[in-house]
Amino acid sequence: MVVKSQLKFIKSLYQKKYRIQNGLFVAEGRKVVSELMNSKITAHSIYSTDPLFKAKSKVKVHYISEKDLSRLSFQKSPNKVLGIFEIPEAEDIDFSDWVVVLDAIQDPGNLGTIIRLCDWFGITHLICSPDTVDCYNPKVLQSTMGSIARVNIVYKDIVDLLEENKNVAFGTYMQGNSVYSANLPEKGLLILGNEGKGISEEVGLKLNAKNRLSIPQYGKKTTESLNVATATAIFLSEIRRGTRVTN
Amino acid sequence: MVVKSQLKFIKSLYQKKYRIQNGLFVAEGRKVVSELMNSKITAHSIYSTDPLFKAKSKVKVHYISEKDLSRLSFQKSPNKVLGIFEIPEAEDIDFSDWVVVLDAIQDPGNLGTIIRLCDWFGITHLICSPDTVDCYNPKVLQSTMGSIARVNIVYKDIVDLLEENKNVAFGTYMQGNSVYSANLPEKGLLILGNEGKGISEEVGLKLNAKNRLSIPQYGKKTTESLNVATATAIFLSEIRRGTRVTN
Repeated sequence: MVVKSQLKFIKSLYQKKYRIQNGLFVAEGRKVVSELMNSKITAHSIYSTDPLFKAKSKVKVHYISEKDLSRLSFQKSPNKVLGIFEIPEAEDIDFSDWVVVLDAIQDPGNLGTIIRLCDWFGITHLICSPDTVDCYNPKVLQSTMGSIARVNIVYKDIVDLLEENKNVAFGTYMQGNSVYSANLPEKGLLILGNEGKGISEEVGLKLNAKNRLSIPQYGKKTTESLNVATATAIFLSEIRRGTRVTN
Repeated sequence: MVVKSQLKFIKSLYQKKYRIQNGLFVAEGRKVVSELMNSKITAHSIYSTDPLFKAKSKVKVHYISEKDLSRLSFQKSPNKVLGIFEIPEAEDIDFSDWVVVLDAIQDPGNLGTIIRLCDWFGITHLICSPDTVDCYNPKVLQSTMGSIARVNIVYKDIVDLLEENKNVAFGTYMQGNSVYSANLPEKGLLILGNEGKGISEEVGLKLNAKNRLSIPQYGKKTTESLNVATATAIFLSEIRRGTRVTN
């Protein structure tokens, strides 16, 4: 059974303010919860409608009814398990490989997809501008499919970052040099901008004009843009493909 | 004003059965409706809350209240304009370029994103298996951002297609030859499979083993897969990049 105080507490964690205040976030679904439990992230408590669901560590599992789960869940069709986890402390960023940098990404699904792409392509550090959507937002967590446990995410001012860090920074633009003919170094910063506005002016001013990259359009000149998550897929593929092409 | 019979009729078009019966579909939002009106697709009628919204052709525009629009719309926050259009007749497929083939894609957002990617990369013909989600589903239309007007979509059995057509067919798999070192021809079929099950067995049996392609994973071996829409982005980029690389 879920008592009223638990319900109120868990529901509060759907708001960023209370996540920060408590240092906790909620993740839903058997797969995501399992992946998080198998990671270095610390579980706080688990709620499950499946009496056979076992937690790996000593964390308490509350076995609850479907009805109770749907009261706790933010999803329309909750998937058996809900977990509360401690927000991990951000690690120091390792600039010896490529680092992805997001400038004001707003859509939770886009951020989740980008985290999943970073995981796929072995990008272990992701920097988000403070006005990027919170990575512990339940919709972000859902679309990461658990890969958030394997990517170190740091919220940080991008202008400060570019002033401090000497790695070459590449910005992604609608108009720029083709990524297909760019000479991409072994390490660098890949900056992706807001869904509507792109990279902000103050960040753009810090970039060398030749490091403005774009994905050439092949179709008729009518489609206005690629979605930022699909663009990220192509840029990361270009960064990594060089180390994989064998012929 | 929207009368009850209009409301009932428009609402019915959110179901595939009635779309087929009437040969009509609904599109929402100023941008999508405008793109469709500027295409070869024929408009049937337009509903707008903006008294300044003009239809290009002779099609009738019904100026309605916000309240009426929200009764017609399937969206939580409808965006000013809703249009009813005639489902275009599928054109003959032109196999002189690459054609994308979808085997049982279920998620409307994925289909919409793939249509948008086809448009970006100049893929003008898209074949969907009969069990792929309907491309005139309102959620698909919303995520195409209007690019559906520029891609010819044909629903067709894929095994039949592979028996009839002599272009080389490439299947995308979790385990396969790296797309980065594949010799991709100037034309071919690129097959993408269902979100959970991948390419169906009967389609797989028709493919030459060396034409099973995959995107190499670079990270730790923990992420189970890329989303099919982001995978499509990378495959299409690989198909087109060869014609663009200048160095």
